[in-house]
Amino acid sequence: MSAYASLAAHFGRISAMSNAIGILQWDSDTMMPKGAAASRAESLALLRVLQHEMAVDPRLGDWLEAAAGDDTLGDWERANLREMRRVFTAQTAVPADLVEASSKAISACEMAWRQARAESDFPALLPYLAEVLRLQREAGAAKGAILGLSPYDALLNDYEPGARIARIDALFDDLAAFLPGFTEEALAAQARRPAPGALEGPFAVEAQRGLGQRMMAALGYDFDRGRLDVSTHPFCGGADHDVRITTRYDEADFAKALMGVIHETGHALYEQGRPAAYMNQPVGQARGMVLHESQSLLMEMQACRSREFLGFAAPLMRAAFGGTGPEWEAEALWRRYTRIERGFIRVDADEVTYPAHVILRTRLEKAMIADDLPLAELPAAWNAGMKELLGTTPPNDRLGCLQDIHWPSGGWGYFPTYTLGAIAAAQLFDAACRAEPDTLPAIGRGDFAPLVGWLRTHVHGLGSLLDTDALLTRATGRPLDAGVFKAHLARRYLPA
Amino acid sequence: MSAYASLAAHFGRISAMSNAIGILQWDSDTMMPKGAAASRAESLALLRVLQHEMAVDPRLGDWLEAAAGDDTLGDWERANLREMRRVFTAQTAVPADLVEASSKAISACEMAWRQARAESDFPALLPYLAEVLRLQREAGAAKGAILGLSPYDALLNDYEPGARIARIDALFDDLAAFLPGFTEEALAAQARRPAPGALEGPFAVEAQRGLGQRMMAALGYDFDRGRLDVSTHPFCGGADHDVRITTRYDEADFAKALMGVIHETGHALYEQGRPAAYMNQPVGQARGMVLHESQSLLMEMQACRSREFLGFAAPLMRAAFGGTGPEWEAEALWRRYTRIERGFIRVDADEVTYPAHVILRTRLEKAMIADDLPLAELPAAWNAGMKELLGTTPPNDRLGCLQDIHWPSGGWGYFPTYTLGAIAAAQLFDAACRAEPDTLPAIGRGDFAPLVGWLRTHVHGLGSLLDTDALLTRATGRPLDAGVFKAHLARRYLPA
Repeated sequence: MSAYASLAAHFGRISAMSNAIGILQWDSDTMMPKGAAASRAESLALLRVLQHEMAVDPRLGDWLEAAAGDDTLGDWERANLREMRRVFTAQTAVPADLVEASSKAISACEMAWRQARAESDFPALLPYLAEVLRLQREAGAAKGAILGLSPYDALLNDYEPGARIARIDALFDDLAAFLPGFTEEALAAQARRPAPGALEGPFAVEAQRGLGQRMMAALGYDFDRGRLDVSTHPFCGGADHDVRITTRYDEADFAKALMGVIHETGHALYEQGRPAAYMNQPVGQARGMVLHESQSLLMEMQACRSREFLGFAAPLMRAAFGGTGPEWEAEALWRRYTRIERGFIRVDADEVTYPAHVILRTRLEKAMIADDLPLAELPAAWNAGMKELLGTTPPNDRLGCLQDIHWPSGGWGYFPTYTLGAIAAAQLFDAACRAEPDTLPAIGRGDFAPLVGWLRTHVHGLGSLLDTDALLTRATGRPLDAGVFKAHLARRYLPA
Repeated sequence: MSAYASLAAHFGRISAMSNAIGILQWDSDTMMPKGAAASRAESLALLRVLQHEMAVDPRLGDWLEAAAGDDTLGDWERANLREMRRVFTAQTAVPADLVEASSKAISACEMAWRQARAESDFPALLPYLAEVLRLQREAGAAKGAILGLSPYDALLNDYEPGARIARIDALFDDLAAFLPGFTEEALAAQARRPAPGALEGPFAVEAQRGLGQRMMAALGYDFDRGRLDVSTHPFCGGADHDVRITTRYDEADFAKALMGVIHETGHALYEQGRPAAYMNQPVGQARGMVLHESQSLLMEMQACRSREFLGFAAPLMRAAFGGTGPEWEAEALWRRYTRIERGFIRVDADEVTYPAHVILRTRLEKAMIADDLPLAELPAAWNAGMKELLGTTPPNDRLGCLQDIHWPSGGWGYFPTYTLGAIAAAQLFDAACRAEPDTLPAIGRGDFAPLVGWLRTHVHGLGSLLDTDALLTRATGRPLDAGVFKAHLARRYLPA
């Protein structure tokens, strides 16, 4: 067997292990009875250690060296080798006992977080979160030492290869300067328009589920390779050929679950559209979380808060919930689903205020990883940041620093990708609409094929062949740039 | 660390892997979308290979030798060592490539079986089943060579340590001689009693699920450490502290799911009641499938087809389905749920005709493993055996040799444990009722605590401390013996 073939087989086994872990993690969040938590944590920790052992197998170094001189390889195989080398380097930087300790700390912290959030009790979470943070910092330092990066850049790199906090700070400082004034202006414009009438619930969970599934089908989600379920914190997970999404239902407001389902379907379409021939190989993975978040936000924010989409969706909403009256007309629904508001909760935020939530978290986690912010001071720093960036102060930590699972679950360095993704989403949707003028009119007919076809070609089907900026440049004519995002906001939220 | 402590830690890791496999297998049967089948098979095959590698780790031999001389160990630890040695011997007998090939063949065959059963197409299953059989035979031969057993005895041993086909043949030949005449007599007695009126459906799935959960709770099932779901073939699976059962609902007949749920709850109570301190150790496992089946049949057949149980259940059934009229009275329901009939389907069979189904399968699989019956002749041999043992001939293979998942899923040697379990169930229930005279009256009040308390002490909580005959002797005064089973049948089915 050639060195390349040995590598491909080995990474195939690593992928089989990832798939097992993905389903067990999904089960932990959707199906598992609470009494199984400790036992499940043991199983997941074991599988992660075994996966880590496979990922740092010393034969990989030899095979990578031997394959580097193989001139029979095509573009995809060479890109696959590059990605294998990247993964191997990142993995070998972190010792196995740190991986295992981190997995156990995360499992314990996630459980503590569920309770602490419910009871708005940050002190109860503190010791668990301190342990997760300590191990994240240690992992960031270990990776940074190998890659020549700061610990926080090294953590960013896990979610978005090539990301640097210096560039993110520049983009975010620009947005932090732009958005407060823009938000004022947009809120003033909104105040001058008639408010959409309230939609009267309750909205039965079964009807919400049915409508969500109808939308998933319209967007092109393949139910033969995935499922829709319920979890506290919605996510897209699972395995190759088994891309599962979750939502949570609120009987008082069906849009939370519906827009959540559309968001996760955007992620899922990326996963289901990865290149079939490289599905279990590093080059076949999604490029990074910036493009991943771009796909969810492209669906949720760009496509499905358009007037065209609401023209298609309004009759389905009326049919699902028996809605009648002017507040159920497409234009009223469009006004409702493009309303903006300064709120406490990131996942409920609109696209105008969302970046402020992300900028806050990015600044805080950068400071915590650098040990510039003691964890005990997080609630106060959070509230101060909310005041500064959004002009609001959460009344308690449940609506403040306890709201997200990311830090308890070890996702430090993930937050900035949401807003970088929103920027990329605006660029990509704009390019798709320019390349295929029927894109938006088709969405008005419930036909997402032109949009998803363009995304398959320009994003999903490329896997990790190109880096994010190269992909964006090929697809949209320029690297990541907030210009189109700002123009989109102005077009949608300011008076014509 | 002492040799014993090293062994305990190592078997704890093997258990963590079993738990991962158990949940993934459960997911495959309940939740997985069909497009994920091939990928899931890869993941399960990988985990089984890794588990096998852990189970045959050469350090185990050294540790077992060192621990044998450790005189600080108590009874449970010594029994744990004995079970570790038994597991290690069985595992080392089978090479890793055979384990992997078998896992893949089983995954493929299970998928083929689902289709073949639906279409009653045995030829479509044949090549897949031939491969599973070939590998089972090979595994039986490998184990038998080490253990000094025939291949079929070696396979039996996987499910019931110490079982021998010679003893089973003797028990089964005796039953095969007793049952046809008994069945005639019981059918004649039944024909002289008034038939219970038909229960008019449809019975809504949600109401069936609710009633099933109510019964699980009454039986003492711990929902914090398990779930109830739906699968084609009902089973009890999952993991330590996460004992999941499944059923399937038929809107025309709620008793199928209800009795199925009670049956699987019997299995689950055994699993949930295993000794807590040894939950992840070999000595903490269920003793074998004879006792396991005894626990499901004790609940389904002995306890929950009693007049006392139906006195408790009848009002709940009426409330669940809005039943009225004489056919919903406890006595009529008791007559309904103790009706016997010569049918084609094992899982629908009553306790009088069930042994014939098992004896047929045991004879056939013994012959197939011994290569005395070519697989292509299985349908004909099946139908001939049905004619001989039950006096009926299935009209097609869907109702014949395609009905069970056991052979496609590699469970050769499992079938006899059902009827050995029925025999043990009769012994154990009789002993429980003699030890605690309130056992049956309490069931009439929906209180299973006296029964389950006795089972916790005499069966569940003992794990694998004793062998099956020793446990039965301690609990009931004698080893496995069909006398009480026959007496139970006579008492329930023949005129007083």
